[in-house]
Amino acid sequence: MKPEALAALQARFAEQLSTAPAILQAHGRDESHPTVHPPHAVLFARSETDVVDALGLASAHGFPVTPFAVGSSLEGQVIPVQGGLSLDVSSMNAVLALEPGGFQATVQPGVTYPELNRRSRPHGLFFPVDPGAEASLGGMASTNASGTGAVRYGTTRDNVLELRVALMDGSVIRVGSKARKTSAGYDLKHLFIGAEGTLGVITELTVKLWPLPGHVAVLRGHFPGVEAAATCAVQVMGAALSPERLELMDAELMRAVNRHEGAAYPEAPTLWIELASSSAVGLGEALGLCSEIMADSGGGGLEVARSAADRAALWEARHHAYYALGALYPGHDRLSTDICVPLQHLPGIIGFSRALAGQEGLHASFVGHVGDGNFHVLFHAPPDDGATWARIHGVYDRMIGEALALGGTCSGEHGIGLHKRAHLAREHGDTLALMRAIKALLDPSGLLNPGKILP
Amino acid sequence: MKPEALAALQARFAEQLSTAPAILQAHGRDESHPTVHPPHAVLFARSETDVVDALGLASAHGFPVTPFAVGSSLEGQVIPVQGGLSLDVSSMNAVLALEPGGFQATVQPGVTYPELNRRSRPHGLFFPVDPGAEASLGGMASTNASGTGAVRYGTTRDNVLELRVALMDGSVIRVGSKARKTSAGYDLKHLFIGAEGTLGVITELTVKLWPLPGHVAVLRGHFPGVEAAATCAVQVMGAALSPERLELMDAELMRAVNRHEGAAYPEAPTLWIELASSSAVGLGEALGLCSEIMADSGGGGLEVARSAADRAALWEARHHAYYALGALYPGHDRLSTDICVPLQHLPGIIGFSRALAGQEGLHASFVGHVGDGNFHVLFHAPPDDGATWARIHGVYDRMIGEALALGGTCSGEHGIGLHKRAHLAREHGDTLALMRAIKALLDPSGLLNPGKILP
Repeated sequence: MKPEALAALQARFAEQLSTAPAILQAHGRDESHPTVHPPHAVLFARSETDVVDALGLASAHGFPVTPFAVGSSLEGQVIPVQGGLSLDVSSMNAVLALEPGGFQATVQPGVTYPELNRRSRPHGLFFPVDPGAEASLGGMASTNASGTGAVRYGTTRDNVLELRVALMDGSVIRVGSKARKTSAGYDLKHLFIGAEGTLGVITELTVKLWPLPGHVAVLRGHFPGVEAAATCAVQVMGAALSPERLELMDAELMRAVNRHEGAAYPEAPTLWIELASSSAVGLGEALGLCSEIMADSGGGGLEVARSAADRAALWEARHHAYYALGALYPGHDRLSTDICVPLQHLPGIIGFSRALAGQEGLHASFVGHVGDGNFHVLFHAPPDDGATWARIHGVYDRMIGEALALGGTCSGEHGIGLHKRAHLAREHGDTLALMRAIKALLDPSGLLNPGKILP
Repeated sequence: MKPEALAALQARFAEQLSTAPAILQAHGRDESHPTVHPPHAVLFARSETDVVDALGLASAHGFPVTPFAVGSSLEGQVIPVQGGLSLDVSSMNAVLALEPGGFQATVQPGVTYPELNRRSRPHGLFFPVDPGAEASLGGMASTNASGTGAVRYGTTRDNVLELRVALMDGSVIRVGSKARKTSAGYDLKHLFIGAEGTLGVITELTVKLWPLPGHVAVLRGHFPGVEAAATCAVQVMGAALSPERLELMDAELMRAVNRHEGAAYPEAPTLWIELASSSAVGLGEALGLCSEIMADSGGGGLEVARSAADRAALWEARHHAYYALGALYPGHDRLSTDICVPLQHLPGIIGFSRALAGQEGLHASFVGHVGDGNFHVLFHAPPDDGATWARIHGVYDRMIGEALALGGTCSGEHGIGLHKRAHLAREHGDTLALMRAIKALLDPSGLLNPGKILP
């Protein structure tokens, strides 16, 4: 960034602008180690006007702008690889409106989803998208994040009604509608959702809220193999049970949790199925049907939890999986794949991936949002073990090739960011030219989060 | 169309091309009377190659192309107002793949949703979007159509996984993914959904299928006023009952059905609520809760139907409403509004609209997908009664103004087409420039369905 650009930023933003080394460092990375590229400056934006003015200065002085909120992206999305300004919107964290009768809330982009849930619950409502990591709604919209609730409630994309977006030309546009349905003109909203801040900066979101389910229970059981568990998940989906969550962990991860927590979970592939109903009796019947399906698929050790405390206890191993794995291998870098395939291909590609990792002698743990066909393989190795990392990337590459051959995608919920651009080219090579043309329309100088998404 | 263009079409397509007056006439209108503009020729495309070649000839000779399937659009979408070629895809009606384990089907654009349902039901699955009129899936995607199932299953937009689209540059692209979730790059799929054939021609769709609900029942009751019925609908939505359908008809429409069918329905605002559950007992409890809500909101004459035959009988008045109104006023032209507002504003805007129509002395019947906040006012008058039509348009205009002020949209499910372009400018004036730029990217010569959407 040129000195006059920095001076102009300082003149406009005073103490909202920081060049303190620790701040720059904290804005130079995300959860995808080991890449670190600090920006030249960090702006703590407090309002839409701040965002507009920052983009105006970027245009005038030609420096890059990379939006940032919580820094929990997994593919390098918030890393300012070309330096410039990190536009931190975490202080834009007001819930601007909460309309219980309209089942919607309007928020600034720095509001986190747990905070929105704290605000919604007193109204009997909640926001069901739960990617973890106290993610911000602006970031979640920008990567189309999801999590365990997507099987029932959809992804962030499905839960955003309207956006306000600041563009590089100095304007702020409103896309979508606060109505639940609209067929009014070209849908520009979905262009900005998942665009990772490369087309504009989201300054406000109106999102759907959902009624809290009346009666909830969780079933957990273990299976003789990951494929059997995945097959059971497919059958649950076919039974019109509309599970609230449907999660898989493999034996490797269960073992990691046992070792890390001194627990004694069966070290076998494990499936969690959360069901809800407006009536206790209805829930009981659904649990009965679901238990039968699980038993017929070879599931054993079935446990049911109904109270909030019991449910939390039953989910505990699932919630601690990432952390347990990290703690077991201190100093290792990790990589999480993010493949999603049509549901009928899920057991097959999980088998394929396990065999491949086995052949290559890799530690590979499987965790999956298996009702969606989305699963993550967690690889890990010491950062300097180049040979292992080359094998990991080789396996990942072949897994993506297989997923694409089956009609799937290289990213179910993490996005493309910095790290998966080559995979995007494999998946959507025929539309890259159109993506580039749209990028050029909205950001002709290429200043918005450069280096992301487009290869 | 120049003679050499027609000759080139004839040389390539032989008997697939028609210039018979009756065929031209049938492709010159839709359900939005009284506009009629016949094309110069109609091509009955049989394959994606036919579509690509037709677009190639259009580019070479500079004639407009307007996609057509069933002709059931409501805003003039399929009317070739600048002549040229009507590209009829109704013969591209193959179900290319049906994957029960993946809950999806891949179809050509001419497949109708009733046909897809006939093919899906033996697998225990169905396609839940039901706009009526034996609509084609290509057309439904192009207008983002919906209907009574949207309250539970979303609109066409929410149910399309992947598209193949033929572009004016001669290419065919694949957008979206057959996976249920994807965060891979810019979402171009949603740009073509709802674009009314102005950006490209859809040649193939992969859509979601859903498990048929296990146990279904319908409740019907009548209310002292339309606003009370709408308020009840909002409360049902808040009770986490996830209704399958939630429909409203006003006294005027009930009266029309009675007169037309010699029936004796209570001539009062009437609400239908369809509920489903995986268990009979669960369904019973949900019905109990729903009945209480209806009674508390002033609903009377509650009837419940459980068997398929009884449900069909209970729904009958709703299904016959449009037809009954048409039959009661033979020779009248009709206009259906399509406003959708955030749910908390639904009772208010229905009251506002009723009062306005009353002040102007207009016949106005209300029917609504009230769980979505979407309602239609059916106006009618003799085609040559210019004074009444001016009052109708004046009222419609003020209704849209009110809807926009409340954060709603001028079109919940019918699209913009020819007739609502000025309203689109009111609703999305700040993004028209971007819409036009995207149109110019994909159709630089303006040959794809010219005169639609963009004012």
